[in-house]
Amino acid sequence: MNPSTLIGILSSMVLLGSVLFFAAESPGSFLNLPGLAIVLAGTMAATFISYPLREVLRVVGLIGVVFRRENTYVRDDIQELVDMSRLWFKGDVRAVEKALANTRNPFLRSGIQLVISNTKEEEIIDLLSWRIARLKAREHAEAQVFHTMAAYAPAFGMIGTLVGLVNMLEVMEAGDLEIIGPRMAVALLTTFYGILLANLVFKPFAVKLERRTEERLIAMNMVLEGISLITKRRLPSFIEETLNSFMAKHHDEIRDPS
Amino acid sequence: MNPSTLIGILSSMVLLGSVLFFAAESPGSFLNLPGLAIVLAGTMAATFISYPLREVLRVVGLIGVVFRRENTYVRDDIQELVDMSRLWFKGDVRAVEKALANTRNPFLRSGIQLVISNTKEEEIIDLLSWRIARLKAREHAEAQVFHTMAAYAPAFGMIGTLVGLVNMLEVMEAGDLEIIGPRMAVALLTTFYGILLANLVFKPFAVKLERRTEERLIAMNMVLEGISLITKRRLPSFIEETLNSFMAKHHDEIRDPS
Amino acid sequence: MNPSTLIGILSSMVLLGSVLFFAAESPGSFLNLPGLAIVLAGTMAATFISYPLREVLRVVGLIGVVFRRENTYVRDDIQELVDMSRLWFKGDVRAVEKALANTRNPFLRSGIQLVISNTKEEEIIDLLSWRIARLKAREHAEAQVFHTMAAYAPAFGMIGTLVGLVNMLEVMEAGDLEIIGPRMAVALLTTFYGILLANLVFKPFAVKLERRTEERLIAMNMVLEGISLITKRRLPSFIEETLNSFMAKHHDEIRDPS
Amino acid sequence: MNPSTLIGILSSMVLLGSVLFFAAESPGSFLNLPGLAIVLAGTMAATFISYPLREVLRVVGLIGVVFRRENTYVRDDIQELVDMSRLWFKGDVRAVEKALANTRNPFLRSGIQLVISNTKEEEIIDLLSWRIARLKAREHAEAQVFHTMAAYAPAFGMIGTLVGLVNMLEVMEAGDLEIIGPRMAVALLTTFYGILLANLVFKPFAVKLERRTEERLIAMNMVLEGISLITKRRLPSFIEETLNSFMAKHHDEIRDPS
Amino acid sequence: MNPSTLIGILSSMVLLGSVLFFAAESPGSFLNLPGLAIVLAGTMAATFISYPLREVLRVVGLIGVVFRRENTYVRDDIQELVDMSRLWFKGDVRAVEKALANTRNPFLRSGIQLVISNTKEEEIIDLLSWRIARLKAREHAEAQVFHTMAAYAPAFGMIGTLVGLVNMLEVMEAGDLEIIGPRMAVALLTTFYGILLANLVFKPFAVKLERRTEERLIAMNMVLEGISLITKRRLPSFIEETLNSFMAKHHDEIRDPS
Repeated sequence: MNPSTLIGILSSMVLLGSVLFFAAESPGSFLNLPGLAIVLAGTMAATFISYPLREVLRVVGLIGVVFRRENTYVRDDIQELVDMSRLWFKGDVRAVEKALANTRNPFLRSGIQLVISNTKEEEIIDLLSWRIARLKAREHAEAQVFHTMAAYAPAFGMIGTLVGLVNMLEVMEAGDLEIIGPRMAVALLTTFYGILLANLVFKPFAVKLERRTEERLIAMNMVLEGISLITKRRLPSFIEETLNSFMAKHHDEIRDPS
Repeated sequence: MNPSTLIGILSSMVLLGSVLFFAAESPGSFLNLPGLAIVLAGTMAATFISYPLREVLRVVGLIGVVFRRENTYVRDDIQELVDMSRLWFKGDVRAVEKALANTRNPFLRSGIQLVISNTKEEEIIDLLSWRIARLKAREHAEAQVFHTMAAYAPAFGMIGTLVGLVNMLEVMEAGDLEIIGPRMAVALLTTFYGILLANLVFKPFAVKLERRTEERLIAMNMVLEGISLITKRRLPSFIEETLNSFMAKHHDEIRDPS
Repeated sequence: MNPSTLIGILSSMVLLGSVLFFAAESPGSFLNLPGLAIVLAGTMAATFISYPLREVLRVVGLIGVVFRRENTYVRDDIQELVDMSRLWFKGDVRAVEKALANTRNPFLRSGIQLVISNTKEEEIIDLLSWRIARLKAREHAEAQVFHTMAAYAPAFGMIGTLVGLVNMLEVMEAGDLEIIGPRMAVALLTTFYGILLANLVFKPFAVKLERRTEERLIAMNMVLEGISLITKRRLPSFIEETLNSFMAKHHDEIRDPS
Repeated sequence: MNPSTLIGILSSMVLLGSVLFFAAESPGSFLNLPGLAIVLAGTMAATFISYPLREVLRVVGLIGVVFRRENTYVRDDIQELVDMSRLWFKGDVRAVEKALANTRNPFLRSGIQLVISNTKEEEIIDLLSWRIARLKAREHAEAQVFHTMAAYAPAFGMIGTLVGLVNMLEVMEAGDLEIIGPRMAVALLTTFYGILLANLVFKPFAVKLERRTEERLIAMNMVLEGISLITKRRLPSFIEETLNSFMAKHHDEIRDPS
Repeated sequence: MNPSTLIGILSSMVLLGSVLFFAAESPGSFLNLPGLAIVLAGTMAATFISYPLREVLRVVGLIGVVFRRENTYVRDDIQELVDMSRLWFKGDVRAVEKALANTRNPFLRSGIQLVISNTKEEEIIDLLSWRIARLKAREHAEAQVFHTMAAYAPAFGMIGTLVGLVNMLEVMEAGDLEIIGPRMAVALLTTFYGILLANLVFKPFAVKLERRTEERLIAMNMVLEGISLITKRRLPSFIEETLNSFMAKHHDEIRDPS
């Protein structure tokens, strides 16, 4: 996440927070620990039944990703690929191996290593495609965890509200109407927590991870295409041109601005 | 968007606006700035967490597209393709290059340039298909941003309403029943804003972008088909006939009117 | 639509109408013009932003289709195809052309014309498949317009109800409780209109168009199969048998009745 | 449906019925004919607009299927296929034809007839696959009718409730608060009918039909595989082994119990 | 499920339970047997109509799976496969058969048995792929049963609430306002039960089964790939390397940590 994104998030969060704060009659009345506990414990319980603990923990570890600077190294990867293809074309295997040691992209490294060890093209493609498919499946499953939590949170919010309403209605028996208002307010707070958690935390995280996966898949397919061209013994200049044309940006793909 | 579409939008918007205005007891009571701020700030915050800032800004830049005249240049593109195929068939590469300089469709230009530089047919198709797939993925993602916003807006509308209800119920404690009505009205306004924003802005924009993408993809596939026929060295007259038959319109595809 | 279908629609509509009429305390109270205007104007406005005007108008023109007699001409088309294949097999191109002039199925006509002009089989299949795909895409988009409207109508119904509630709550300030009932009734009417429109008009129309498209696609694929067999120079008797076996009906496909 | 399934349905229905009966203050108050008429007439009207009458009637005729004993004849079919393949392998066409007359599976019969008439393997597969695809499309469409009705029923339940509420609110004008309770009860009954119909009738029927279709498709694919092996002139013993291994059951496909 | 997962489930369940207990005015008032009976009997009735009894029972038998230790034996399977490929490569069929007797993976065993009996590679792949597809279809259907129950439970919760409300409103006729509160509380309890069952039992079970199926499919595809390599007579060392590279874990697939 580049700084501007962080600014966007922070400023809108501050805005939302302050609006909620000033809109509230007495901000303290928006804190209801039992209600919050029902939503959080319920969502956690449902999530732990749905997924193995180690998977939940791994996904929680991804929260950092959402706020981290998400550089895409596509340009670097293309440059490295083209450089290696030049060395490989010259037959300088030593230099390729030295370049391999310096690359920081394990997927690219595996691909070139397979090329060096003279694996058949078809099998290289198979192996790399499998790794792409596996990354796609795993990251999709991770985003799915957050989507599931985004569905559980409002449900437990409503469960908490029902608990609050039932309590309130029991008391109403005594005809003590004055205490109904604050009790109902407390009951509604759990729904408030549930919807807020789902829409400000779980769902945005899920969407963010999905978008990130899409960009990573594009980068991996790019590398796959490059490796495939290298095994076909294409000229390094052709590889460079092709990969760069893949990445070229147009204002509008099918119409120049007038 | 041709003028008639604009008339359609404007007249129905005016109708909706005036109905809402006259239906309102006192129109001023429909303006509740804190409520509007909760919906807008909440939707913005959730969107900024979901997507990188540069993507949100790019999508906001597309709002103009929704109201711009959306010409499709399919007929022009077919004509240009056929003209170039004639020149290419005659072997007049110079003339093709001059025609290329005049075309305003970058996708068509890239395709013909690949043909001129004698790239293999299979590779031309590969490269152009990749660009079609990339445009599809990117424009789909852009429409998705609006769909996501259309889901966030009513959620934050409901959050605002819950805040309003909680405030109202706190006050009810004092038994001051006369102020409940207006306060509840204010609480309901945020739900009103949320649903209105989602159904009159975000969702229609998303649908519009999706439809636009579909039409653009048809145009690009048409060009792809034309380029493919050129590389197969088909007669320009056959290419023209085929592309035109693709675009032919029938009252009913499988039954003439009686 | 055969007469029996019309009877089904009319009788159930009359039943629904009369039940609603008699269930109403005073039927006149179910007419609320501003409420109806909010739902209709809102749905129209959202639809006009979502789709170009010419597309909305085209889809409105399809409403007639929903109530028209929907004959499928599959049997006729098979007969025509087999007749033409016999003439073509005998080499009587003149007679085929005369038969072509009489057919009322443009898709079948194009296919046979391509056969007569000795186009390659692969290209005939390509061209006809493209037309099938285009019809599918276009008719799917048309049904989608109604689905979109079915989603907008209840949303604007709810918007109207919120407007009504806000007005009512403003007035409640004066403590004039006697007018709350009728006002709230009016507020609920817009939700009533929105749900009724969506479930009795927009959604059924969308489903009807989708079903129609499915049947048309089956008919087109049948013709495509027949054309394909003709280009493969199969015996007309074989073509007839194959196409008829495609259309054969069984009480139960995998078990005869005992 | 085997007897145990019937017992399951009946006992749970009796349980549900008696619970509802005893939970009711006065069971008679749960019968509201106008409300029921709104839900039924509305659902019928929307369904008749959505689908042609003959299709609705055909689907209604499938209700019996839901309660009928659903034997799968896969084992019988495999046995018949293997027996015929033995006769065919021996070249005894007469015996195959006699066996064909006795089989009660029209799909199997068509397949073997195509084999006997020496149709090309590729065309047999094509024809049988088309029939599988057609059955899948038709039965999917039939289940879809019930899914559509399951969506209409609660909508018309809500429409009825809105009608009831509007009536009630009109009357409230007179300040006659005592009659509000029963009237609101009547209003809520239509929602009750709509949800009950959708969740106890339409949706379960749709799910049942979908499950049945899945099992039928497995049986048909099994026959298709057997026919394909016969056309490849495989040994009957190999065919038997292969088809049986397809049907073999394991406690757990990838781990024996310890 | 490893112990840590169990700890996760238990602790969050205890937390949720205690919060609900302490939030309740009088915990006893949260037990409403008729309400619980409506939700359970309704969900059971709808499920028994939707699915054959034997399928429901089979799925209920899977509840144990959700809480059982879910080891994946992928590493063991790879080792067994590589060991057998070594024996097979040496031509020691006896030893392979002895190893087969010891393996506890029926899918792996079937595959190797097909290799030993010299079945064609193409047919081995076909047969094993069919078994993978069948397992996927069956386990998907099982998870679907829980998803269906998760949809029925809140619907019958709402049905119970409507019954309770109607009863309450009938009584309101007598103007006996004091008993409204507790009765309405009882009415809301069925909704509470329905949502709780759906979100804490049915949906998490469905998600758990889906995740388990995904992991099992990966393991089966791994075995399939290994068998395929054996039939291609690849070197055991190559098979080992390939399968292990499939399973290799990277901190991040396309970027090493700095």
